[in-house]
Amino acid sequence: MIIVEPSAELMSVTKSPALLIEAAGRTCYKSEDRICEGSADKLINGTLRKLGHLSVLEHAVATFRFVCDRGVTHEMVRHRLASFSQESTRYCNYGKNKFGGQIRVIKPPCKTDIGAQAWEEAMLDAERHYLRMLDAGEPPQIARSVLPNSLKTEIVMTANFREWLHVFALRTKPAAHPQIVEVMLIAQEILKKECPEVFDTEV
Amino acid sequence: MIIVEPSAELMSVTKSPALLIEAAGRTCYKSEDRICEGSADKLINGTLRKLGHLSVLEHAVATFRFVCDRGVTHEMVRHRLASFSQESTRYCNYGKNKFGGQIRVIKPPCKTDIGAQAWEEAMLDAERHYLRMLDAGEPPQIARSVLPNSLKTEIVMTANFREWLHVFALRTKPAAHPQIVEVMLIAQEILKKECPEVFDTEV
Amino acid sequence: MIIVEPSAELMSVTKSPALLIEAAGRTCYKSEDRICEGSADKLINGTLRKLGHLSVLEHAVATFRFVCDRGVTHEMVRHRLASFSQESTRYCNYGKNKFGGQIRVIKPPCKTDIGAQAWEEAMLDAERHYLRMLDAGEPPQIARSVLPNSLKTEIVMTANFREWLHVFALRTKPAAHPQIVEVMLIAQEILKKECPEVFDTEV
Amino acid sequence: MIIVEPSAELMSVTKSPALLIEAAGRTCYKSEDRICEGSADKLINGTLRKLGHLSVLEHAVATFRFVCDRGVTHEMVRHRLASFSQESTRYCNYGKNKFGGQIRVIKPPCKTDIGAQAWEEAMLDAERHYLRMLDAGEPPQIARSVLPNSLKTEIVMTANFREWLHVFALRTKPAAHPQIVEVMLIAQEILKKECPEVFDTEV
Repeated sequence: MIIVEPSAELMSVTKSPALLIEAAGRTCYKSEDRICEGSADKLINGTLRKLGHLSVLEHAVATFRFVCDRGVTHEMVRHRLASFSQESTRYCNYGKNKFGGQIRVIKPPCKTDIGAQAWEEAMLDAERHYLRMLDAGEPPQIARSVLPNSLKTEIVMTANFREWLHVFALRTKPAAHPQIVEVMLIAQEILKKECPEVFDTEV
Repeated sequence: MIIVEPSAELMSVTKSPALLIEAAGRTCYKSEDRICEGSADKLINGTLRKLGHLSVLEHAVATFRFVCDRGVTHEMVRHRLASFSQESTRYCNYGKNKFGGQIRVIKPPCKTDIGAQAWEEAMLDAERHYLRMLDAGEPPQIARSVLPNSLKTEIVMTANFREWLHVFALRTKPAAHPQIVEVMLIAQEILKKECPEVFDTEV
Repeated sequence: MIIVEPSAELMSVTKSPALLIEAAGRTCYKSEDRICEGSADKLINGTLRKLGHLSVLEHAVATFRFVCDRGVTHEMVRHRLASFSQESTRYCNYGKNKFGGQIRVIKPPCKTDIGAQAWEEAMLDAERHYLRMLDAGEPPQIARSVLPNSLKTEIVMTANFREWLHVFALRTKPAAHPQIVEVMLIAQEILKKECPEVFDTEV
Repeated sequence: MIIVEPSAELMSVTKSPALLIEAAGRTCYKSEDRICEGSADKLINGTLRKLGHLSVLEHAVATFRFVCDRGVTHEMVRHRLASFSQESTRYCNYGKNKFGGQIRVIKPPCKTDIGAQAWEEAMLDAERHYLRMLDAGEPPQIARSVLPNSLKTEIVMTANFREWLHVFALRTKPAAHPQIVEVMLIAQEILKKECPEVFDTEV
């Protein structure tokens, strides 16, 4: 059993996203003559956001690779306007040499020592039973039935900026699961730098 | 630990779906004068399907309640054109009296006795560790980290007929996971009876 | 040229929608034991709405037939979560006997007599040019190029209750086009009666 | 009245799209070790396409600006998985100096001289009635009711590569309207050069 750190890495983002959003938005009003320095920010935050004309933000997109547990991804993939490619427990055989014959897991934020110890024992037990099932001849897609929510997974998620705003609004607030908050805050910080006009505002 | 049978139950379906689809389809061509006995089947299978004009099938919808494991639902919710409401492992506390202090699980189709026994031990171990974590004061959303893919879940899924055709095409074929095939075949049989014009054809 | 009144007619709606929504919503919390008289309204307005857990409203759907002009439908079909079947100007030949050799139009709410008269002359001119093009041997899909935004069209629109709430919020407010407001208010009134728990609230 | 040529211009496209698609696709199988020269093409055309695993193509996106008529955009915006920003006939006042007090139109491919002449007269009549309505004090959103399908419009459309494949499949075939075929063929040629692995294949 190997404990892995959760992470979020930007794989791709629209080039000059604020300028693309401005070009699209000004198409509606044929106001391209007003494009100048600072005009994108003004259009995005002074007009589009105030009018709720957020569909224009959809022209810019970003792709992240998240490393997290499968409990978290079961929530992530509920965002139906995004695109996902996820590490498959049907096609990956963690008993193989390629994986060192070990499962990778993400440690949850337990509040108690007893809880943390129970969790660790649970991981070792799950790994043992998983490998036994493979040894007995069960295929990975059947043996996966004993794998826990804490199993580390990788997921590539692409969404447009309007959807990322929505995801961050839902998944970084106190009511969200702490482990989805953790990776979404990383992603949000990255997009604040990539496109402050959209992500680094007080709206 | 309680072993539960997987199932699929129809909760709601559009009334007279073939007639609604016909009424919508004939709007495009203003050919409502051709409506008569048997004309819906002719339009759906003789015209719409042949032309690939399948969007008309979207006006009819069906809602199912599936009982299956969480490995299966992680695949189901990838169908982004459907709507889902799922039993929450964050809000349900399986240690409570309401659940008899036991987890419910779905048995996978193991091919070997050793595999089946490893699976059963894994379930008992997972249950034990889960209850220990709750006893130690961890909230359900943290203790869930040790719960296995085999955990029984309930999910309500609504989709339109075009999407159900797509789901059945993907999820009942040999390449699909045997446990999603199992519940989707039940749903498909039900819709074949509810609307043979759409679901009981050789296309 | 025939002037037609705009309208909205309910073609189909989920049976007992509030009960279906409640059944789906209580699946998440496994709180089905709380179902009793009035509990659906309490769940929908006291819990789901307050928590923003609106996805549960997606399990109920309604289908309307709208008669309006093509300017209005160009806005309607921008609601990408709905399903549409629309009278086709490519496949309908308004020069044919079936249509009396006349185009049908929807009168806009002109504020001035001169405006109203200019509109009427425009319709007659457009009809004349359209019929000339057909007479010259142009197919309907080319002759349609002279048809005006005021052309009457029929569109069948299916959406779930969450989306109808969104459509009504956008398309009945003062900033919306008066002709889309007109038909959406009719639809909203109908759904208020069909499912007051969702549509007849002050939220 | 000014006659404008239809066009399609690439505004934005994912950087190194085939490499991004490969990185996402290999996440599913954890086969990143196989990445080498030519491996992206092999994965996309030898594996993903054959298995129908097309969701991986969604991570790459392209944005086009189309200049075409409003008959064409009424079809374009029916592709619900794309994002659109369109020149607004509610907010643009073609009577204003900014537009030279003239409407812009796209000429349809008439087969006959009489048809072409009827079309041209129709445009001039529509322009005259539109300007009369504005002069009488009607706002642009009411005067637009007399504007024809041939009215030139600009639309910015963003879609992922999977959706562009679908759009091209539908909108470049003989059954499609000739004027949507015209602009989609331009867009298709551009994407064939930008990402031959996805767009320049015989599938």
